[in-house]
Amino acid sequence: MTDDELIRHVVAGCGVASVVPPADAEGRSLSPFGARLHAAPVLRPANTSQVATMVRLLRDAGKSLVPLGGATGLVAGLLPSSGTEWYLSTERMRKIERLDRESRVAVVQAGVVLQTLQEAAARQDMLFPIDLGARGSASIGGLIATNAGGERVLRFGMMRDQVLGLEVVMADGTVLDLMDQVVKNNAGYDLKQLFIGSEGTLGIVTRAVVRLRPALERNEAALLALNDLDDLPNLLFRIESALGGSLSAFELMWPDFFELMTGGEIPRHRSPFESGAAAYVLMELEESGAIDSSERLIDLLDGLATNGLLRGAAVARTHADRDAFWRIRNDIEHLIKAMSPLHAYDVSVPIALMTGYVAELRTAVATRWPHSRIVVFGHVADNNLHVVVNGPTETDKEALDDLVYAGVMSRRGSISAEHGIGLDKRRGLRAARPPDVMALMQALKRLLDPRDMLNPGKVV
Amino acid sequence: MTDDELIRHVVAGCGVASVVPPADAEGRSLSPFGARLHAAPVLRPANTSQVATMVRLLRDAGKSLVPLGGATGLVAGLLPSSGTEWYLSTERMRKIERLDRESRVAVVQAGVVLQTLQEAAARQDMLFPIDLGARGSASIGGLIATNAGGERVLRFGMMRDQVLGLEVVMADGTVLDLMDQVVKNNAGYDLKQLFIGSEGTLGIVTRAVVRLRPALERNEAALLALNDLDDLPNLLFRIESALGGSLSAFELMWPDFFELMTGGEIPRHRSPFESGAAAYVLMELEESGAIDSSERLIDLLDGLATNGLLRGAAVARTHADRDAFWRIRNDIEHLIKAMSPLHAYDVSVPIALMTGYVAELRTAVATRWPHSRIVVFGHVADNNLHVVVNGPTETDKEALDDLVYAGVMSRRGSISAEHGIGLDKRRGLRAARPPDVMALMQALKRLLDPRDMLNPGKVV
Repeated sequence: MTDDELIRHVVAGCGVASVVPPADAEGRSLSPFGARLHAAPVLRPANTSQVATMVRLLRDAGKSLVPLGGATGLVAGLLPSSGTEWYLSTERMRKIERLDRESRVAVVQAGVVLQTLQEAAARQDMLFPIDLGARGSASIGGLIATNAGGERVLRFGMMRDQVLGLEVVMADGTVLDLMDQVVKNNAGYDLKQLFIGSEGTLGIVTRAVVRLRPALERNEAALLALNDLDDLPNLLFRIESALGGSLSAFELMWPDFFELMTGGEIPRHRSPFESGAAAYVLMELEESGAIDSSERLIDLLDGLATNGLLRGAAVARTHADRDAFWRIRNDIEHLIKAMSPLHAYDVSVPIALMTGYVAELRTAVATRWPHSRIVVFGHVADNNLHVVVNGPTETDKEALDDLVYAGVMSRRGSISAEHGIGLDKRRGLRAARPPDVMALMQALKRLLDPRDMLNPGKVV
Repeated sequence: MTDDELIRHVVAGCGVASVVPPADAEGRSLSPFGARLHAAPVLRPANTSQVATMVRLLRDAGKSLVPLGGATGLVAGLLPSSGTEWYLSTERMRKIERLDRESRVAVVQAGVVLQTLQEAAARQDMLFPIDLGARGSASIGGLIATNAGGERVLRFGMMRDQVLGLEVVMADGTVLDLMDQVVKNNAGYDLKQLFIGSEGTLGIVTRAVVRLRPALERNEAALLALNDLDDLPNLLFRIESALGGSLSAFELMWPDFFELMTGGEIPRHRSPFESGAAAYVLMELEESGAIDSSERLIDLLDGLATNGLLRGAAVARTHADRDAFWRIRNDIEHLIKAMSPLHAYDVSVPIALMTGYVAELRTAVATRWPHSRIVVFGHVADNNLHVVVNGPTETDKEALDDLVYAGVMSRRGSISAEHGIGLDKRRGLRAARPPDVMALMQALKRLLDPRDMLNPGKVV
């Protein structure tokens, strides 16, 4: 069957709006780093049954399929690898089918945009706690397929922890109905876990039931300057202990990062501190009810300073203060500009071993590439470090990968904390996982997608 | 090979302490309901490598294996079904290998008893939040294999949410090393999820990395009497909203349950209320830091009473008060005595649909069995209802199952909230899950255990 004939079959089954022909699809964004779609058709199903129809038609024609959400991933998870790829976008599947305040669940189609769901929940005094920079384009289906993390994992968990039910179209066109709507559920193997975080290689997420929570009334943010990086685990432990579960962000910035953002002749952002601290932390607590959260935070920080754990602290008095603190942490645009060409890593390391890991990595990189530069920051309380390196060339990339990953693996961390594997980290994954573990991943792929039709070449 | 020869091989490989011969093993407890071990050998490995050796020896001899933890499960998950079963107990694998306060993780062998881990964590000002009545015997391996829930799921999640890393011996003797120690981890398919909640049918859990949290300083408990069951979702929403995440228990008791515990000529437990409320709730909050939790709770309850949502409330002023409240909820011994012979169910239903479900079930059961009696209670905030029925006979069991499950399924709940499937609920599972879903569960079982050697006949 020619591609044109196949397109006609899809149109016959699903309507004319269900296909964007290759010439019109070419150039669509496939990643925030600038990757663009080659001239391949983009299928646009309106519902689950159309997804199933498309999968069957493409399978019979020997095509493969890349599921497409908001295209905000960072590991080349959508780039073609086999040359037979068509794309299947969930952009017409944007319905919030139900938002149930009493049962605290939302039932959504896969294409619903994160921010849309956040705002719909907020209008009913509820919280959907996953949040990340790409909230305006990332889709729920994509967030599930990549098990997204973001800024509040410490308190609310990753995307996996929000999903109560799932509907998945499998490689043979079967619609798997796992749309349960309850938190406690031990009715057989928990099959939805297979698809969460499998990056579209085992099935296509079409609908989901996600958990909502009552909204929190207020947040309080503070910027901390540390005397000594060795204090970090103790500092975090004391803050968490004192706040009893209210802590929702604890973002560590090494001085290289903080000074890049706040230093120089014309600083991008204002620092409330004299320079010279060992590290900086942006922390935030979120609470409700009759508590003076601000007083509580100030008392806590006073005590920590008295104990020598803080060199300084600045508490946000207004929303503008808070936004200014977060802009230091989130000015990734400036980071990319200052560090390009850059190599970026997203790794996890146990808290107690983090500062040692970073120090060791700095030395190793400086020894090998004397003119290189590293900046480090991350969601420390959930183990996640972002490491950005300038200096090593493209040909040095594998050697740099090996340096970054070796220290992660020896500390039983993760070579990919929240971004996933895609095409970019496949080599790293094979080095990080023992052969038996890789073999089981591959066996699952063969079981669920024997023709390697779904997002081929990714992850395994 | 005869059984005696096989035992000699195990002893040669793993030492004389590694086998309890059939005559000595006979009569061991297999369930809190009184099931006992038939005359089968119990293997007692001291470490992972011995588990792998035993699995290979038994596989070659055509035996099957039932992994044995604390034997506190409630769904006949350990009873023999094929007649070829030997048992493998983790009772010699009770080492807490590491308890890391800075990184908030514990690395444990599968046989560690829940209470031992709880207490070890508490000694270092930390919390392992899974808790249930069988804490003194349930093992971490068993809790993982059954994805245990318990009393604090609302706030801290189920066992699945505590597991960061896992070591599993598979049916071919392979040791799968998934012992990562970090919260954020998207390095390929999350294989540990396959084994959590699979009841020992896909692999044998030998070691685990679990997440710990800083301990909470205090709890406050209250007993509430409701005017109207229709208020339940609103009441829960307002309490959760006001407490901003501090709520850690919200146990609903229908009057039949509460009056069984507190009524009669010689009441087992004292009720602080006049009788006649629509339902009763035992709630608890846990907090740390400079907050007057007691005042906060009292203010909240005053407001709810003013709004007509409460008929009465009693706040625990002492530990003895709190214990007395919990004894009403947890006097399962009295419940069993009063209701035997009984049929017990552990189901999940969305919060908004719960009271309707219970009312409908009551009517249906009373119509069919006019002299029956039902009591209902549960961890309502995480959807979990326990339903206990007296009246229908053993021959009525399937008809009763069908009634209980039909209303659960139509509401997209779960026929097994926290107890699992075992042998007891296999028929229910097949009715609750579509054929495609059951087929995928069975395909996973064939992939991971092609000879049906691990806990045969359970779940799928």
